[in-house]
Amino acid sequence: MNLPFDIDRAMELAINEARRGAGFVSPNPLVGCVILDSKGEELSRGFHPKLGKDHAEVDALKKIKDKKLLEGAHMVVTLEPCAHDGRTPSCANAIKELPLASVTYGLLDPNPLTAGKGAQIISASGIHCQEYLGDKIPLEELAEQFLINQRMDRAFISLKVASSIDGQMALSDGSSKWITSEQSRALAHHLRATHDGILVGRKTFEVDNPSLNVRHDEFPDKRNKVIVLDPKGKTKNLIEGSNIHKNHPPEDIFIVTEESVEFKGMNNITCSLDESGTFKLSELTNRFLEFGIHSVLVEGGALVHSSFLLQGCWDRLHLFMAPKIFGSTNGISWSQEFGISNMTEACELSWPRSTMVGSDLYYSARNLMAGKNQESSD
Amino acid sequence: MNLPFDIDRAMELAINEARRGAGFVSPNPLVGCVILDSKGEELSRGFHPKLGKDHAEVDALKKIKDKKLLEGAHMVVTLEPCAHDGRTPSCANAIKELPLASVTYGLLDPNPLTAGKGAQIISASGIHCQEYLGDKIPLEELAEQFLINQRMDRAFISLKVASSIDGQMALSDGSSKWITSEQSRALAHHLRATHDGILVGRKTFEVDNPSLNVRHDEFPDKRNKVIVLDPKGKTKNLIEGSNIHKNHPPEDIFIVTEESVEFKGMNNITCSLDESGTFKLSELTNRFLEFGIHSVLVEGGALVHSSFLLQGCWDRLHLFMAPKIFGSTNGISWSQEFGISNMTEACELSWPRSTMVGSDLYYSARNLMAGKNQESSD
Repeated sequence: MNLPFDIDRAMELAINEARRGAGFVSPNPLVGCVILDSKGEELSRGFHPKLGKDHAEVDALKKIKDKKLLEGAHMVVTLEPCAHDGRTPSCANAIKELPLASVTYGLLDPNPLTAGKGAQIISASGIHCQEYLGDKIPLEELAEQFLINQRMDRAFISLKVASSIDGQMALSDGSSKWITSEQSRALAHHLRATHDGILVGRKTFEVDNPSLNVRHDEFPDKRNKVIVLDPKGKTKNLIEGSNIHKNHPPEDIFIVTEESVEFKGMNNITCSLDESGTFKLSELTNRFLEFGIHSVLVEGGALVHSSFLLQGCWDRLHLFMAPKIFGSTNGISWSQEFGISNMTEACELSWPRSTMVGSDLYYSARNLMAGKNQESSD
Repeated sequence: MNLPFDIDRAMELAINEARRGAGFVSPNPLVGCVILDSKGEELSRGFHPKLGKDHAEVDALKKIKDKKLLEGAHMVVTLEPCAHDGRTPSCANAIKELPLASVTYGLLDPNPLTAGKGAQIISASGIHCQEYLGDKIPLEELAEQFLINQRMDRAFISLKVASSIDGQMALSDGSSKWITSEQSRALAHHLRATHDGILVGRKTFEVDNPSLNVRHDEFPDKRNKVIVLDPKGKTKNLIEGSNIHKNHPPEDIFIVTEESVEFKGMNNITCSLDESGTFKLSELTNRFLEFGIHSVLVEGGALVHSSFLLQGCWDRLHLFMAPKIFGSTNGISWSQEFGISNMTEACELSWPRSTMVGSDLYYSARNLMAGKNQESSD
């Protein structure tokens, strides 16, 4: 079908609109929508603003007061309109009643049981319904947490590292505070706000006593979950009185141990260990879903980052590098505990991008194998 | 003086024009010039295209056929017009004869013996001559090699590193070839073309047998010098037949040793060692000037990079990082042999910038102390 507007530009607008929901929609995906009249002039934009609130399509439709304008109009939406009634009624069923000429959606619903059904409902009503054939990467990135949840049946895992430009997170004496700038830390808190949970290892908990909450103007009331990896339950008597305990209600705190441990009022997740004494992360990240944790920002330390790298159980890297050289001799590299024996085993990254944040470098890329690796077979 | 044009924009144009000479003007600085008529309309742009050829001011003036247009015109030039007759006649003396209204120069001549003299000559003729008061950083960057030569009496030193995103140049078994992409390598050859010499350590010479020449379309006839650090002269019998020897005339090859060694037809530079057996780099980089080497691109290995870092004798870092994680366990970090004992000793970088080059990250920044550190006192 020949559309009377630039579909790439319209999809870009829809993607930008979708991002406005970041931090508020989990476990739903970010979705954006643009509606154009029969001549290709924009009528409205919409997005999914919050879990349980309107889907993007409905949000955009509600903004059009004069419904006559929908005659022969076009809808561009980042994700296939939903076919089922869930927290909100089915979008496909609402759309099929409209006098639209076309609906273009960015990605198919990743759930194989429903994928294509939304499109089918709309097509059956006589509206031309098609999948967008342009650049899929921004669409995949937009919905990446949701897509990994659906495709891999586990939480989406982001590794967040703050280091010197030569990759050192700290010196071997432990000194590390405020390596990066205030602007980087603001962006890091934005990242926290767009993940359900923040994860650290026991050592980081003990040495840094971090708060692991969201301190960002755009998210004044954000509640996030906190996860501490603690195979032997050594934090049992430390967690009360800690900054985590002060800054989060107990039901938002999750301690992961091998055997079950009682943490007064807090959650305990058990997970088995592999031969090296490390948690089996495909098991753990799958269990996160049961606890309503669909995305996790892993904040270290080096041992924890390395275990996610080693097990290939991670999706995105967020790297903040300060304009400093610490040197490897006395430094702790963020990939300290990870190694490969030949170049073909290197972790490959995809969709890399970088920007300066103040004087720091911010780099973000995907694990090339994210969404592709098999669940471990045990 | 109120100029009838946007001086910041004009200086930016002059800077961009200057860059066209990159790779051809050493040991001169890159200089660009814009001439605007009395109403502020651009008349011409010029740059210093090649050592011994016209200076930027003359290049720009020559492009104006109708000399009447110079009545009340304005000149904007990145560096103070030269006061002395050198390879070319004094620009200040040529300019003072013109009916210009103003000359604005970006930086003063860094040589304290001549600084301000060019401006003085022009002012004395009644032309309003002023230093630019806007952002000096792009001007300092433009002329950085020349400025360091003048201020520090030594060659300008750039460290070039190709690594994984976690800072590993190679695996401990030595495998490393083509870590970065073709686009990065093209940019790396551009960097080679804009330095007089390429420097490697003996081990890199022996293990990689590199050619260290310039392979870049924009510089088909570029001859560059090659420097090998070899304290004990162990390469004496290896250098003939090597790729360096095949790709460079012997007079362009420089082997640095502690005691003088005969390298048939090639150059031998001697330099004393410090207690750790490392060359005293302030002595060496000063000696480079005697051999017509005003800028050096240091290409490794890790030991060589670290010795420049340790001695604080370097000016700019060029970092190419591939979208791969090698891990530190079996990797060789580019800052492997460098270390600090507390955070205040970290090498600080200034003027950082980054861009994606294909799928690689390219990062460049200055040593904050470049041009500020004292010559070592020995």
